[in-house]
Amino acid sequence: MQLGLIGLGRMGGNMRDRLRAAGHEVVGYDHHKETTDVASLAELVEKLAAPRVIWTMVPAGQITESTIDELAELMSDGDIIIDGGNSKFTDDAPRAERLKPKGISYIDCGVSGGIWGITNGYALMVGGDAATVAHCQPIFDALKPAGEFGFAHAGTHGAGHYAKMIHNGIEYGMMQAYAEGYEILTAAEIVENVPAIIKSWREGSVVKSWLLDLLDRALDEDPQLANLKGYVDDTGEGRWTIDEAVRLAVPANVLAASLFVRFGSRQEDSPAMKAVAALRNQFGGHAVRR
Amino acid sequence: MQLGLIGLGRMGGNMRDRLRAAGHEVVGYDHHKETTDVASLAELVEKLAAPRVIWTMVPAGQITESTIDELAELMSDGDIIIDGGNSKFTDDAPRAERLKPKGISYIDCGVSGGIWGITNGYALMVGGDAATVAHCQPIFDALKPAGEFGFAHAGTHGAGHYAKMIHNGIEYGMMQAYAEGYEILTAAEIVENVPAIIKSWREGSVVKSWLLDLLDRALDEDPQLANLKGYVDDTGEGRWTIDEAVRLAVPANVLAASLFVRFGSRQEDSPAMKAVAALRNQFGGHAVRR
Amino acid sequence: MQLGLIGLGRMGGNMRDRLRAAGHEVVGYDHHKETTDVASLAELVEKLAAPRVIWTMVPAGQITESTIDELAELMSDGDIIIDGGNSKFTDDAPRAERLKPKGISYIDCGVSGGIWGITNGYALMVGGDAATVAHCQPIFDALKPAGEFGFAHAGTHGAGHYAKMIHNGIEYGMMQAYAEGYEILTAAEIVENVPAIIKSWREGSVVKSWLLDLLDRALDEDPQLANLKGYVDDTGEGRWTIDEAVRLAVPANVLAASLFVRFGSRQEDSPAMKAVAALRNQFGGHAVRR
Amino acid sequence: MQLGLIGLGRMGGNMRDRLRAAGHEVVGYDHHKETTDVASLAELVEKLAAPRVIWTMVPAGQITESTIDELAELMSDGDIIIDGGNSKFTDDAPRAERLKPKGISYIDCGVSGGIWGITNGYALMVGGDAATVAHCQPIFDALKPAGEFGFAHAGTHGAGHYAKMIHNGIEYGMMQAYAEGYEILTAAEIVENVPAIIKSWREGSVVKSWLLDLLDRALDEDPQLANLKGYVDDTGEGRWTIDEAVRLAVPANVLAASLFVRFGSRQEDSPAMKAVAALRNQFGGHAVRR
Repeated sequence: MQLGLIGLGRMGGNMRDRLRAAGHEVVGYDHHKETTDVASLAELVEKLAAPRVIWTMVPAGQITESTIDELAELMSDGDIIIDGGNSKFTDDAPRAERLKPKGISYIDCGVSGGIWGITNGYALMVGGDAATVAHCQPIFDALKPAGEFGFAHAGTHGAGHYAKMIHNGIEYGMMQAYAEGYEILTAAEIVENVPAIIKSWREGSVVKSWLLDLLDRALDEDPQLANLKGYVDDTGEGRWTIDEAVRLAVPANVLAASLFVRFGSRQEDSPAMKAVAALRNQFGGHAVRR
Repeated sequence: MQLGLIGLGRMGGNMRDRLRAAGHEVVGYDHHKETTDVASLAELVEKLAAPRVIWTMVPAGQITESTIDELAELMSDGDIIIDGGNSKFTDDAPRAERLKPKGISYIDCGVSGGIWGITNGYALMVGGDAATVAHCQPIFDALKPAGEFGFAHAGTHGAGHYAKMIHNGIEYGMMQAYAEGYEILTAAEIVENVPAIIKSWREGSVVKSWLLDLLDRALDEDPQLANLKGYVDDTGEGRWTIDEAVRLAVPANVLAASLFVRFGSRQEDSPAMKAVAALRNQFGGHAVRR
Repeated sequence: MQLGLIGLGRMGGNMRDRLRAAGHEVVGYDHHKETTDVASLAELVEKLAAPRVIWTMVPAGQITESTIDELAELMSDGDIIIDGGNSKFTDDAPRAERLKPKGISYIDCGVSGGIWGITNGYALMVGGDAATVAHCQPIFDALKPAGEFGFAHAGTHGAGHYAKMIHNGIEYGMMQAYAEGYEILTAAEIVENVPAIIKSWREGSVVKSWLLDLLDRALDEDPQLANLKGYVDDTGEGRWTIDEAVRLAVPANVLAASLFVRFGSRQEDSPAMKAVAALRNQFGGHAVRR
Repeated sequence: MQLGLIGLGRMGGNMRDRLRAAGHEVVGYDHHKETTDVASLAELVEKLAAPRVIWTMVPAGQITESTIDELAELMSDGDIIIDGGNSKFTDDAPRAERLKPKGISYIDCGVSGGIWGITNGYALMVGGDAATVAHCQPIFDALKPAGEFGFAHAGTHGAGHYAKMIHNGIEYGMMQAYAEGYEILTAAEIVENVPAIIKSWREGSVVKSWLLDLLDRALDEDPQLANLKGYVDDTGEGRWTIDEAVRLAVPANVLAASLFVRFGSRQEDSPAMKAVAALRNQFGGHAVRR
């Protein structure tokens, strides 16, 4: 089927290729002239036959909001907009409400898979009404991995992004679990070959996973990760996950700790630890570093 | 080759089957009469041709120690003992030292894989000297999964159990990450189908793993885990992992939190939270439950 | 000076007494007939000479909002409203904006001290403009403890409630630190007299504090806290503190852990730990409780 | 009464002064010639009339062990040794056993108070038998603060050091609670005067404490802690506290997090966060810092 796809970066560009390889007709728009198929959103909409399906894959937040609002002006009754970016789940119901009077249906779709999705397929979690989801199913089927997994209709508007948010929260926790174990191994006097141990876990062990495969891959390239700094960004999903844990009174020590350590990794110096150093100096005369 | 195997429970019994299926001659000993191949350790040793290799797969701690000490009396110069149980890594070097004067070599082997190892193979992490490991390699090759992964010579005596300890520490963290995400999903008003979301992550997602496959399996059997209590035991490895993090000054918030929440899951009531309740009542007159 | 005081519960009632003891004229309003001085907000406003100062001390959220909105209808240009409840700091600037067109000035005031404030005085943290704060200073001076401490002008609208929010976040963390230490002491075989140890810390030690005094007091009344359940509520401030830590990228493991353990203390059973139990059963055949 | 005091550093030197001010006769020994009263341990023992009481106040670990062993050779039946250093509680019972055959009694004494103890008195927690403790009570009474608090007989050998260990674990947690709250305040746009807020909490608030007084003092000296690095050492007690929490299955998230963040404060770069950065780069092509 036909699909309009807005945003042809690392994710969107690969998705266009995967969809075309599956026989779908994709018209892509991007502000980079080298990659775009059309010159404007207006031209994108014009090229698609009604009822149109247009997928936004642009940075979450203001860019996504303004893109969808602009699209809404150009699209018609019966059309569908799918947001596949990392929007906050609370944005979805208001968006659906804004689009409804124009007769435009809306689906939020959490997309996981990173740069490997083009070959492995993407895990998709969607929110919206059943009829709209059904209409778009051929697109989802082409993007998802072969086999029975990789797609879920999670619930109403926002449920798709919600599921993706929690997915990312879990991802933070899993990565941190591996990372802490890795650090202990590198510190232990008795252990001679950390990369070999990581590799041994890839089959047969309880902790085997795709992330572990990737850790092994990273250690193959750089056995001591000597070329990396321990500096880690975070995107909104990890933070929203903790906000939700707090709102819903769910104890989430592991997910929160995984987020906080990222915050710490980006600090030149820690105001909190300055305060602790000051206190130790005050009560015990302990030496401080100045 | 020939192997003596002591302990034919859930793990050892399956290992005997897998080794025999691979063509090895296994003489098993267990105190359960229905499963044992021989009536005593003495008979076990007698049935094996020198140089013998005997694998202990019994509960860590005193039982393993006494079994190995008893074996040492029966075995001869040139023989090998492999401990595949979950011994603490600090037990291994002293054991190797105790066995050395008798000419008995020692290998510690961390074994992961659980009840699935019989078909999937077991991930094995061994500690000891290269020659002894090489001698036993046919046994390791039969137990490990097919393919390039699932076996590592981690270092000297104790390194095998050390690697397994950290493996389990990571396992705690991963499980807790999934579990916290799962709980938030179950609490969220917007989410309609938690098991479908878990299932969607099994392919294409960043969090795909064998543990996730098993969570999906558990939810297939009991979609709300209604037949389970949230009561979780811990074995030594998780605790030793934190002891090591503390000893080596490695920040391990995720692994520690994963352990502590298990402690909490087993408490009828929490003395700490009684103290907090008492404090709130003292300063603010807040209601307490009696 | 004259003050209208709305809400004469555990906090407001004591504050009325303390203010009157200091020579101020307080007209109190409460929906409980036994405690109120006037029959209605209208009568309260009527009894005060312009420019009026009215202090709200009612539950945060909708009740505070509607009380302030109702007051605004009754009050006049030049009057002042002080909210001393535990409002969220983000409510304050919008409130000040709503009141401005009517010529009513607004101050937010965080109040700490609990049921002891009537004798010890209350720590007050205020937000608002300097002139309005100065006008109300006699009230603050009567409520705060004698001496140089116990009052801060923290910043603009919202800064007072912000400071109180963080105060409560810290309070959670301190209480949990004592509580965890207390629990370890109660579990240690070697320790014979936990209450005596707590008592010994009240002077001379680094951990002496008012909260510690209260813990000692609680243990005097019930040496094993046998009459309490380890069930602990939380109010908004602890949650908002974590929301702010997440928003501002501040690592706040201790404050978050203190909140999460309260969540856990109120769960009959933990969905997360059910999931962990299910996983252990799946991979290792470990026994579960049903 | 007479007391021998070994170790006249920041703690021991002040204790000698406080004891002398209370009328006790103190013979001090230190390897620094400027401060010592005697030239050797032998001279120290010689100067004291039997039954002697000698207090060791030297670095925990090997120095304390060898000092006590050397003393034991010089002392006589009926004498008493008190260790006031930060020894691990597990060292105390073996020490008492070693001294027993010589007729020397032993007390372990946890001492809190830091550099302020000389004026405020020290909180003392002692372990040992009642008769020996009673014999030394005049010394304890002179060292402890005036009033009813500041001294506890915690239990048998080791209980004193145990209580001090937990005291320090709690101290870590309290300091971290203040520090995290402080950091959020410094990051908040709305807050104009962080030191004034800290100061306001010193009286009337729920979080008032001696540590808070000291934080205020530090901010008086350096309002932004600009002259400090956020680098914090740890001593054994914080680590042993976590080891005990793990051994006794006590959930201790706050105390553990307080320790781990100190570990992190001392790392140039974090191997764990390198691993997380590597993983994010592997799956998502996320930028890394090299």
